[in-house]
Amino acid sequence: MPEYPSLLLENAVNELSRLPGIGRKTAMRLALFLLRQDPVRTDALSKALTGLREGIHYCERCHNISDQQRCAICSNPRRDENTLCIVEDMRDVMAIERTAAYNGLYHVLGGVINPIEGIGPGDLTIAHLIERMQHEQINEVILALPPTVEGDTTSFYLHRQLSRPSLRLTTIAKGVAIGDTLEFADEVTLGRSITNRVLFEKVL
Amino acid sequence: MPEYPSLLLENAVNELSRLPGIGRKTAMRLALFLLRQDPVRTDALSKALTGLREGIHYCERCHNISDQQRCAICSNPRRDENTLCIVEDMRDVMAIERTAAYNGLYHVLGGVINPIEGIGPGDLTIAHLIERMQHEQINEVILALPPTVEGDTTSFYLHRQLSRPSLRLTTIAKGVAIGDTLEFADEVTLGRSITNRVLFEKVL
Repeated sequence: MPEYPSLLLENAVNELSRLPGIGRKTAMRLALFLLRQDPVRTDALSKALTGLREGIHYCERCHNISDQQRCAICSNPRRDENTLCIVEDMRDVMAIERTAAYNGLYHVLGGVINPIEGIGPGDLTIAHLIERMQHEQINEVILALPPTVEGDTTSFYLHRQLSRPSLRLTTIAKGVAIGDTLEFADEVTLGRSITNRVLFEKVL
Repeated sequence: MPEYPSLLLENAVNELSRLPGIGRKTAMRLALFLLRQDPVRTDALSKALTGLREGIHYCERCHNISDQQRCAICSNPRRDENTLCIVEDMRDVMAIERTAAYNGLYHVLGGVINPIEGIGPGDLTIAHLIERMQHEQINEVILALPPTVEGDTTSFYLHRQLSRPSLRLTTIAKGVAIGDTLEFADEVTLGRSITNRVLFEKVL
């Protein structure tokens, strides 16, 4: 007797367990859950996944995920077209949008430079970013990449590629999180918070 | 601007997050993972899930999941047809099969009696079990239900329903797990291990 009583079940468990963070036991739990639900639910899930994979577009301007050629941000005339925020992926766009603290445009790199995983500048949307910088009237570029070695490497690379006298090149502030206790902040973060201290009157 | 940059993405996240143990952040991670993979992968996943939901059978005899009318265990002539092991769901069948310690047949209840979740005897395959007991030549019934209040309630209910002089009605042994240290076993389990102690010569 094979380990699984049904080839259909085995096939579903195999496919589910290819997803990140889902092992064979979880995959089995998900498959049995779907079996207990109405078939309409499984159908809706399958259609949603296939629909996403086949129908998705990436904004031709900023590479954000979009249902149209241009995303809602790039086609919004009220956004500040002279400021460009550079992020790793579309989740960062959503996170920054939720803060309501930014009104410029974005450029989604699709990753960060990571030699260990074999991701170089050519695998990201950096060539298109450089082209955008030539055609669009950008006064400020904000580097909003993750505070990791890879993020910092990418920021440094972009700094070298994009620097020109007329451009204000900034990076998001890194330091102690609002509501954190200093005691429990890690030393690197707390150290940066002190090194990059700002005039008190500026935060008033 | 809506929170999600794409309705297709939002739809996929909604459907994925209906699965147990998958919140919206995990659903988003899964959706973005599929977007990075070849479309063939998403297609294979969708087809496997729909195929499972639409094509699955339950064995007409033991209610185990099967691709045929009768499962591989019920249609295997080498299995002992006089012994019946009663389990909660098909995962337990797989677990017991892996031990290679059992050669009889199964009966899958499809759950255990759980008044809080509104699951009564009528929601399980108990009526069919009683019918099987009348038509098949069963000498021993092994209750292999989970060692929980619900599992014990179900065992007690089945004991009352199935008891007859000619039937050997047993339950799987509960006690300290092999390899466990007594120090870290919970008191209830350790207590049961002592109460239900067996003659040493029997385990030699």
